[in-house]
Amino acid sequence: MNNFTFHNPVRVVFGRGSIAQLSQLVPRDTRLMLIFGGGSIKRNGVYNQVINALMEHDVIEFSGIEPNPLYETCMEAVRLAQEAKVGFLLAVGGGSVMDAAKFIAAAATYAGADPWDMVLKKAPVEAALPLGCVVTLPATGSETNINAVISRASTAQKIPFKSAFLYPQFSILDPDTTFSLPQRQLANGVVDTFAHVCEQYLTYDVNAPLQDRQAEAILLTLIEEAPKLGGPEDNYDVRANLMWCATQALNHNLSCGVPTDWASHGIAHELTALCGLDHARALAIALPALLHKQRQTKRAKLQQFASRVWGICDAIPDEAINKALTRTEEFFGSLGMATRLRDCNIPRNVIFQIAQRLGQRQPLLGEHQNLGTAEIADILEYAF
Amino acid sequence: MNNFTFHNPVRVVFGRGSIAQLSQLVPRDTRLMLIFGGGSIKRNGVYNQVINALMEHDVIEFSGIEPNPLYETCMEAVRLAQEAKVGFLLAVGGGSVMDAAKFIAAAATYAGADPWDMVLKKAPVEAALPLGCVVTLPATGSETNINAVISRASTAQKIPFKSAFLYPQFSILDPDTTFSLPQRQLANGVVDTFAHVCEQYLTYDVNAPLQDRQAEAILLTLIEEAPKLGGPEDNYDVRANLMWCATQALNHNLSCGVPTDWASHGIAHELTALCGLDHARALAIALPALLHKQRQTKRAKLQQFASRVWGICDAIPDEAINKALTRTEEFFGSLGMATRLRDCNIPRNVIFQIAQRLGQRQPLLGEHQNLGTAEIADILEYAF
Repeated sequence: MNNFTFHNPVRVVFGRGSIAQLSQLVPRDTRLMLIFGGGSIKRNGVYNQVINALMEHDVIEFSGIEPNPLYETCMEAVRLAQEAKVGFLLAVGGGSVMDAAKFIAAAATYAGADPWDMVLKKAPVEAALPLGCVVTLPATGSETNINAVISRASTAQKIPFKSAFLYPQFSILDPDTTFSLPQRQLANGVVDTFAHVCEQYLTYDVNAPLQDRQAEAILLTLIEEAPKLGGPEDNYDVRANLMWCATQALNHNLSCGVPTDWASHGIAHELTALCGLDHARALAIALPALLHKQRQTKRAKLQQFASRVWGICDAIPDEAINKALTRTEEFFGSLGMATRLRDCNIPRNVIFQIAQRLGQRQPLLGEHQNLGTAEIADILEYAF
Repeated sequence: MNNFTFHNPVRVVFGRGSIAQLSQLVPRDTRLMLIFGGGSIKRNGVYNQVINALMEHDVIEFSGIEPNPLYETCMEAVRLAQEAKVGFLLAVGGGSVMDAAKFIAAAATYAGADPWDMVLKKAPVEAALPLGCVVTLPATGSETNINAVISRASTAQKIPFKSAFLYPQFSILDPDTTFSLPQRQLANGVVDTFAHVCEQYLTYDVNAPLQDRQAEAILLTLIEEAPKLGGPEDNYDVRANLMWCATQALNHNLSCGVPTDWASHGIAHELTALCGLDHARALAIALPALLHKQRQTKRAKLQQFASRVWGICDAIPDEAINKALTRTEEFFGSLGMATRLRDCNIPRNVIFQIAQRLGQRQPLLGEHQNLGTAEIADILEYAF
């Protein structure tokens, strides 16, 4: 096992009716900016629950955060937060809204000339406004981690950034909020969660069997619960279980002491930035192709994945791995995901463009940081 | 799944060489009290590592914390901490030292007349000195939770207490510190960890499959790793894996959204208080007997435990449960534990004494809070 530090101070308030606890959780001695997306929270009743809980707070609003939140939009919110002397941010929504709030929190207190430097040049984040989250779409795990992903329209870029200053003070997760979500977004959340786990699990062995089993625990639960969505077995517990899986998948616990490989997300971010694919739909294409093409490096873990997650115990390792990856693609397919670029009408020339971009990254992607232009192109050719 | 709040702000610093980080982790603007036990840390080099890391700190020492730490001893430390105007406590040791430090932290700032009221009468803990831990014996999970257990010699009592003020600011876990431990203490740690998991897992089903699998992940890892202790496969990773299991077993994550049954610990504390049994050895007796006698209440989970943890899939549920409990006792036996009172020379009259004591508790023990005198006596008769 590798050395590590783990520190996650987020207060998680989970369950039916928990949005009412906002009235205690949000400080009353400062102005609060409520940040949300396109208005679905006004249709599904979440907005009313939030406003009712904050009757005694000083609240202003910023709405219009888009999926794959844009730097340009976030900077409008930053200006409003600064002008209105906002002291606390409350993100109400899914990963896009939470990620936007994290960037706004950092940018509103940024001392440098250009807040985009925090994203592009990894300029250090040295402070941030405090923030809290009300999660309405379980997927990214942003509610209990330090990560955010911000896009820039003018340059067609989508880039992750992070800082320990970006832990939410609290996150409220009420599974009831998910009942108004379209099936497509629920499916996206399952695949995003599945990918997060694989990226911390399917690398090389460092003798960390508990972390392996904790990863498998989430994958097995996703595989068991996701097919119930929208069917006769769908209920509060199904939503609660998937919501808890999403949070537990990316709260930094699974990665304790083990190598990680975020190449699927790296590739998926490019597909979203260049072609507008939903994040999870990009992952459903990138992840199986990556695992297929990197099977030498990941062999031991892929065999374990085959046997423990999919119950496949073929004597011939490559056969077991093939079957496990087929089952994975079938699982994504059952959720309505295509797993090939051509099925999403992505033109072949995008492959070269993405491979060029990712081949210039420092460090390169992959748990051994060795996925250059040729390797990325190879993965995307397979995914075509 | 039940509603819950989860908040664990402890910074965990894990791995070889991590004690040196004390120099950064401990604040320098206050006097520190180093708290430890009988001096084993002076023999195994841990004391020197700690002192070397704290060369620039203002340190005083309090040693002599005994296993099952005594209120009487802790109060000596409280007086010293108050006289010396100590502002930070550093516990270096296992669960007993960490638990003692938690009580000292709360008692040193307690405004009421008698600090024992916090333990016996659950008088609220409203403040505590900040504390940090260097863990040398993986077992209790005290390093990442709010719990402590304190004994009082004058009344032969051993009682848990807890407060959110008692989270350590940080805990350092270096698996190398465990190599000087006697086999008996290592075995104790494994059984204590195993029991902690069972107490959060083997209750009744609330449809929380991820929590179930996270519990099974720890049990399977313990069963896989513990037999390596002291043998040809024993190495740093075995120690690291068992250490991480102990922490993950009782950092409040497993109990999120599920019922718990701490009756094994309740019974074990009495066996220790009255008969001086090691904590884990008392658990090795109490846990199998509890599970055996409460099999009706715990039936579904016990069947799952049989099949997923022990690979036993008998068609007849009682047969599967019997085999699983036999395997559990054999596992404890393989670690050198007796699982019957008579094998520890405990006289039969203790059964009645313990059943009387626990039958007066409010609330009663058990996930349904219904283990009265008769039920406890029944469990202990089985355990005889």
